Amino acid sequence: MTSSSLRIAIAGLGTVGAGVVTLIQTHGDRIARLAGKPVEIVAVSAKDKTKNRGIDLTPYDFVENPLLFTSRPDVDVIVELIGGEDGVAKNLLEQSLSNKKHVVTANKALLAKHGLVLAQMAESKGVCLSYEAAVAGGIPIIKAMKEGFAANDIDAVYGILNGTCNYILSQMQDTGRDFADVLAEAQEKGYAERDPSFDIDGIDAAHKLCLLTTLAFGVKPRFDQIDMTGIRAITARDIGYARELGYTIKLLGRAQRIGGKIMQTVEPCLVRNGTALAAVHGVFNAVHLHGDFVGHAMAQGRGAGAGPTASAVVADLIDLARGNRVLPFGLDTSMLTDPVMARPEDIHARHYLHLQVLDQPGVIADLAAILKTYNISIESFIQRGRDPGQVVSVVLMIHETSRSAIRQAVNDMEKIPSVTARPTVLSVVDL
Amino acid sequence: MTSSSLRIAIAGLGTVGAGVVTLIQTHGDRIARLAGKPVEIVAVSAKDKTKNRGIDLTPYDFVENPLLFTSRPDVDVIVELIGGEDGVAKNLLEQSLSNKKHVVTANKALLAKHGLVLAQMAESKGVCLSYEAAVAGGIPIIKAMKEGFAANDIDAVYGILNGTCNYILSQMQDTGRDFADVLAEAQEKGYAERDPSFDIDGIDAAHKLCLLTTLAFGVKPRFDQIDMTGIRAITARDIGYARELGYTIKLLGRAQRIGGKIMQTVEPCLVRNGTALAAVHGVFNAVHLHGDFVGHAMAQGRGAGAGPTASAVVADLIDLARGNRVLPFGLDTSMLTDPVMARPEDIHARHYLHLQVLDQPGVIADLAAILKTYNISIESFIQRGRDPGQVVSVVLMIHETSRSAIRQAVNDMEKIPSVTARPTVLSVVDL
Repeated sequence: MTSSSLRIAIAGLGTVGAGVVTLIQTHGDRIARLAGKPVEIVAVSAKDKTKNRGIDLTPYDFVENPLLFTSRPDVDVIVELIGGEDGVAKNLLEQSLSNKKHVVTANKALLAKHGLVLAQMAESKGVCLSYEAAVAGGIPIIKAMKEGFAANDIDAVYGILNGTCNYILSQMQDTGRDFADVLAEAQEKGYAERDPSFDIDGIDAAHKLCLLTTLAFGVKPRFDQIDMTGIRAITARDIGYARELGYTIKLLGRAQRIGGKIMQTVEPCLVRNGTALAAVHGVFNAVHLHGDFVGHAMAQGRGAGAGPTASAVVADLIDLARGNRVLPFGLDTSMLTDPVMARPEDIHARHYLHLQVLDQPGVIADLAAILKTYNISIESFIQRGRDPGQVVSVVLMIHETSRSAIRQAVNDMEKIPSVTARPTVLSVVDL
Repeated sequence: MTSSSLRIAIAGLGTVGAGVVTLIQTHGDRIARLAGKPVEIVAVSAKDKTKNRGIDLTPYDFVENPLLFTSRPDVDVIVELIGGEDGVAKNLLEQSLSNKKHVVTANKALLAKHGLVLAQMAESKGVCLSYEAAVAGGIPIIKAMKEGFAANDIDAVYGILNGTCNYILSQMQDTGRDFADVLAEAQEKGYAERDPSFDIDGIDAAHKLCLLTTLAFGVKPRFDQIDMTGIRAITARDIGYARELGYTIKLLGRAQRIGGKIMQTVEPCLVRNGTALAAVHGVFNAVHLHGDFVGHAMAQGRGAGAGPTASAVVADLIDLARGNRVLPFGLDTSMLTDPVMARPEDIHARHYLHLQVLDQPGVIADLAAILKTYNISIESFIQRGRDPGQVVSVVLMIHETSRSAIRQAVNDMEKIPSVTARPTVLSVVDL
């Protein structure tokens, strides 16, 4: 970069793109002071030029095809805020890197799927691929993991990585309402998409986890190797029982070393009340990690939205303007190792088990017999009230056992005629 | 730096210095992978060469006088872990910077007092002055404020910045024991110094706050302008009353914009239970900030100890090895402004007021009359039991009022004969 300013082109002018333009317009002087030179928007791109975005785009060259950015000599950095794991966004990143343009992106889906190849391209071309905004926008966690905690051998990263899920679970907890009801309200308020599956089935959290896993352990990203369960099955009753037991239910992305293997899971978990993670409320995100020298550390902040995401994008731009470079995954991609993934039999935890059973003689004995078969022991047991012949809830806290054993046991339990619904099994996290 | 390794000399081999040596010995390969080149300890310095520190120092050149480091051509970076706001540490930093050696230091006292001049020296010589370890070692907060949150106009930073105080207050909260008792135990366990005043009078927290204020607001450090109160006056009763009111008492360092002015305080505060800060327990530190784009963000981690501090020191070294540079305060010191400090009449908050009074007719009327004089209104009132003629506790929650008004009121109250001890006044923080 020989220019006296850092010249950028922004592809995508949705909520985040408009937020980045607003931030740079608002804090141009501040950014120049801190970065040592101005960050200058040269060109922008979006499908619809005429749409009112509440920002003045007249100073910038507006193009419909962002791929045209990649050959412009007056552009140093391409900011990709289109989204999507393939298509235009992927083409744009490939062409940008190939033409030795730095890339700043918020696209976790694309990076989870194609991050390794894109990082290799960036390295071979000697340009940056920066993505602070891709994970928990309001928390500078990518920088923290690549730089601040770099001296540590990290053995675990746990994150509340999806604000929509955390909002829904927090609302269920606060109001006692059930999932469908709260989801509908979240959709109405714009906190959840009309097709919410990307969020509530854990996919978005898994994209982010995939990147955190790579940064934590120096392994190649393996999105396909994430054991993923969303929050659709969580009921108001589960939330109530968890509270009674001293826990809050959170959708956690967890990456953890187990011996020489790596566990990657996204699933609703019981997080002990009193811990920092349990207290993370509403649309906030949080990341907790443990390193061999630093010990436990945790950060929280807003996960999404125009402001926090723009803050993260511009932080990456300030790094570039300052001339500071870190490789996409903190070290050369050639040094990333192939992770050996932990299997269900490697993963041990305490579990919460919620069964709906017909209240009739012998049911508990049947359940207990199945647990005994798999050498699983019960820690505590809740059955409130009796209702002979009717469906009642039975909640068991299970002593530490393997994920494979508890899953086999639950499969067997489902076959008992008096078990009337698929049991809910949740891992218990005691930080 | 033209060397194929980053060559460092470490001055000071106490807990932190030994921790840095241990970390570099343990993770030499990891550091080289991430930093792109090895971090190589060339020389070390301490008063006593023969002392057993549990680490092998034989590979390094041992010198008694660390000032000798500053003229060595085989040293790129001097790591100052001696401590103290003047004396050897100050001479070492000045000579190092003057001789164009990068400096990494954990010395908050020195930076709070002389940081501006030292930063100016570093800038004029074109070298780095890095101090991630100086504030909340286990939280990469210096980097976060200089880089991760750089795009934001920050209006408030609140921190639990002293692990000793937070440990003592947490113990008092958990056990109901009184200050002196818990302090004695902390001293026995090595969590508090034999002369604890540096910690418990808030001086150490104020050193750290001073640096955070500069980073948050781009103002010159003004340690002398911190309104500082320690935790000596906090009693088990205060903790109990606070809990009853829904709060936890924490020693907070707070820097905040109030209009065009800057507030800098270190004092025990009532922090509302349910907030992330209230839940920060034991020796942990935490920093909460609010920026105009990012919104609220919070991080917590261990504040001190060999591991977390070494983690922070080595993070700074990895930055240097990667060739990444940020000015000491994020922007050129010539751009730092002179802060206009908020006066007590500018600072408004709710307050907690704990009085010891003789239980006799007219006392409450006298107190109420004083509050009325200063236009202060009472929000709630606790007086448990009656004990005519004896000393009883009266606790008042006071509606938002200025710091000057409540202080004047308390001065007047102290003059009432039936008020038997200096009243405790604490600010209430509702995040």
